[in-house]
Amino acid sequence: MSDSLTNISTLNNGLRIATHHMPHVETVSLGIWVHAGARHETASQHGISHLLEHMAFKGTNRRTAMGIAEEIEAVGGELNAATSLETTAYYARILKDDVPLALDILADILQAPLYAQDELEREREVILQEIAGTRDSPEEIAYELVQEAAFPSQSIGRPILGTAESVKSFTADDLRSFLKQHYTGGRMVLSAAGNLSHDAIVRQSQALFGSLSAGADGGYEPARYVGGPRMSDKVFEQSHLVMGFSGPSYRTTDYYTGQVFSGLFGGGMSSRLFQEVREKRGLCYAIYSSMWALADAGLFGIHAATGHDALGELIGVVNEEFAKAAASRPSEAEVARSKAQIKAGLLMGLESSGARAEQMARQLLLFGRLVDTPELVERIEAVDAEAVRSFAEKLVAGMASVAVVGTGESSGAYAAQAAQKAA
Amino acid sequence: MSDSLTNISTLNNGLRIATHHMPHVETVSLGIWVHAGARHETASQHGISHLLEHMAFKGTNRRTAMGIAEEIEAVGGELNAATSLETTAYYARILKDDVPLALDILADILQAPLYAQDELEREREVILQEIAGTRDSPEEIAYELVQEAAFPSQSIGRPILGTAESVKSFTADDLRSFLKQHYTGGRMVLSAAGNLSHDAIVRQSQALFGSLSAGADGGYEPARYVGGPRMSDKVFEQSHLVMGFSGPSYRTTDYYTGQVFSGLFGGGMSSRLFQEVREKRGLCYAIYSSMWALADAGLFGIHAATGHDALGELIGVVNEEFAKAAASRPSEAEVARSKAQIKAGLLMGLESSGARAEQMARQLLLFGRLVDTPELVERIEAVDAEAVRSFAEKLVAGMASVAVVGTGESSGAYAAQAAQKAA
Repeated sequence: MSDSLTNISTLNNGLRIATHHMPHVETVSLGIWVHAGARHETASQHGISHLLEHMAFKGTNRRTAMGIAEEIEAVGGELNAATSLETTAYYARILKDDVPLALDILADILQAPLYAQDELEREREVILQEIAGTRDSPEEIAYELVQEAAFPSQSIGRPILGTAESVKSFTADDLRSFLKQHYTGGRMVLSAAGNLSHDAIVRQSQALFGSLSAGADGGYEPARYVGGPRMSDKVFEQSHLVMGFSGPSYRTTDYYTGQVFSGLFGGGMSSRLFQEVREKRGLCYAIYSSMWALADAGLFGIHAATGHDALGELIGVVNEEFAKAAASRPSEAEVARSKAQIKAGLLMGLESSGARAEQMARQLLLFGRLVDTPELVERIEAVDAEAVRSFAEKLVAGMASVAVVGTGESSGAYAAQAAQKAA
Repeated sequence: MSDSLTNISTLNNGLRIATHHMPHVETVSLGIWVHAGARHETASQHGISHLLEHMAFKGTNRRTAMGIAEEIEAVGGELNAATSLETTAYYARILKDDVPLALDILADILQAPLYAQDELEREREVILQEIAGTRDSPEEIAYELVQEAAFPSQSIGRPILGTAESVKSFTADDLRSFLKQHYTGGRMVLSAAGNLSHDAIVRQSQALFGSLSAGADGGYEPARYVGGPRMSDKVFEQSHLVMGFSGPSYRTTDYYTGQVFSGLFGGGMSSRLFQEVREKRGLCYAIYSSMWALADAGLFGIHAATGHDALGELIGVVNEEFAKAAASRPSEAEVARSKAQIKAGLLMGLESSGARAEQMARQLLLFGRLVDTPELVERIEAVDAEAVRSFAEKLVAGMASVAVVGTGESSGAYAAQAAQKAA
């Protein structure tokens, strides 16, 4: 990115610092994105990335857990974190004068966590409740089943939270060892957007993170898509259908084709799925498609919920729409509408300091450079109707990953029906 | 609000127009907030505000349902709506050049909806699915039960979505009659924030909304808080506890005291409930308090979810914390921290065009004027530790509204236990 408001620096240990100055605002969003997540776990480490993220807030050499919370909230700041398959992010939103405090806390919790035994025991209980909460969401159950169907026996096919057993199994030494191996300078990006000074952030980061080892990037096994039907025998008021197909990674031009397809297929109110399923048939309150991408793989997915007795009709309609999309090109108007929505979304994202900081961090981790909006727009513009049709054709030529949740014992038969028709 | 970026105009029919110019952005958030919602419904109209909101998107004299969706999405815009107890909002986010289109669509769907019979039949089905979705969320069930316990046999105690029976009962004439009575100039605010021209918006609004009748504001019965325990016998993995107490309306200074109390009691990571329930005991993944206010009433509430066997302990700890808060003043540090969080939140909100447009609309509807940030900060600053203690004391002196959901048949006994201790 070449504008004078955006700057990148790299410390000797490889830690990259990206900032974007927004002079008209009073606050700053900033965080550390680490290229370490559930995907970097071995089978016996299942859930350790997420537990480690939780334990970052439970005290350091210099701060108690309560001290961390009090210091950031005393200045009106917010501190949070999130673990995903390939990255773990620790981020804050603060008033512009409090950048030094936020950086100091982030450096502390990432480099000097205590992992005290009593805190570890209690945090396991918290995560068990977090896991129990997902068991009460038919949507989350369905997404988890599709992830497992798509990538069975792989770290990217497992729930990020881990299992009750795995969460109970980790010791403080396991956490320390995972931290030392994966939380290294070369795998971290510090990204900040708001009313800030790049030079001041670099100076302070040098002091705070300069002694962190460079480390090597962590390898992981390549993704292997499989697919197939899955079900849960739980009964809910509604039946949830989630279907996934092997999709492009972030690194391919197909990714942009997929975004255009997703927009016109199940993106907004004018999309095919919304019109066919909600507007013409009244089957669902919401139906949407989404692109979910990793460095070397991805899933194109759709989700909808309906009454048990309408599930068969829903599956039929969705598969018919997939077949139509593969068989003939979308209209120029549909393609143009989807592109317009993606481009407007890019502009809207730039106005939020949090979205901008996250975008810069993800681009540096994925591409090793920032990709500016004109370049993204160019890639979107390059997609044409035939590329969209061909994308849909390739999608549905593969085995679908399907989960049906909510219909009880019949869920399995519905999932098999959906997977078969879609293949 | 006195800065030159913010302007208010009023049309002859009473429709107020508030705009805030943000020259550094490329987009605009704008919408119409109508002082009409579920609270304005009679018992036989239960759910009609929400159905009417849905039907606004289902075609007008000039546009089909698909046309509405296509026109806004062709320019990358988003259009949405939400029904609450006292207001219904219809809003869009668009690129700055598309303000005229968005206004034209909003004026059309609010003044010339068709309510075609076949669209009405299908939309009922969509809402039945929306209702079914809430039945799968233990949290939503618990909140609904507390609302009903707090305000039984009143429009503000009923679910906004209506019931399956009520949604099926409304005719197109019922909708037209509700629209004519409640969607009048004097009860509407057009609010917009982003890169815009106040004068251009006023000129266009005069042309689009000038012939709307002025109307009279709709009355409703004053809120009567009652309280008591409620339960659902559904079984979920977790038990959800929601407790509510009679709280201040938006129009009282107590509202600001309540915000400060809510922040230190259950607002952030350093709050008493988070520390006691999650950090010291590991009982919950999340616990928080909230202030929910109307023109003449309000609820102070807390929500948490835990395992069935820990529910008794959770209830005991929460009630102990309520008792402590009523018995002695919070520390100066706690009060200062809560104030800092509220003040930073106000500044962060100003940076989002959507949040700013909504804030202006709500202030005009509630107070008849805009309240600027320095004035809000002054009201927050005026709260002291004794006011917070006294607020908590008044809260718990009243009957609690309590819902327990997820433990099956034992839920009722737990709810009664929680309500009794809290009284």
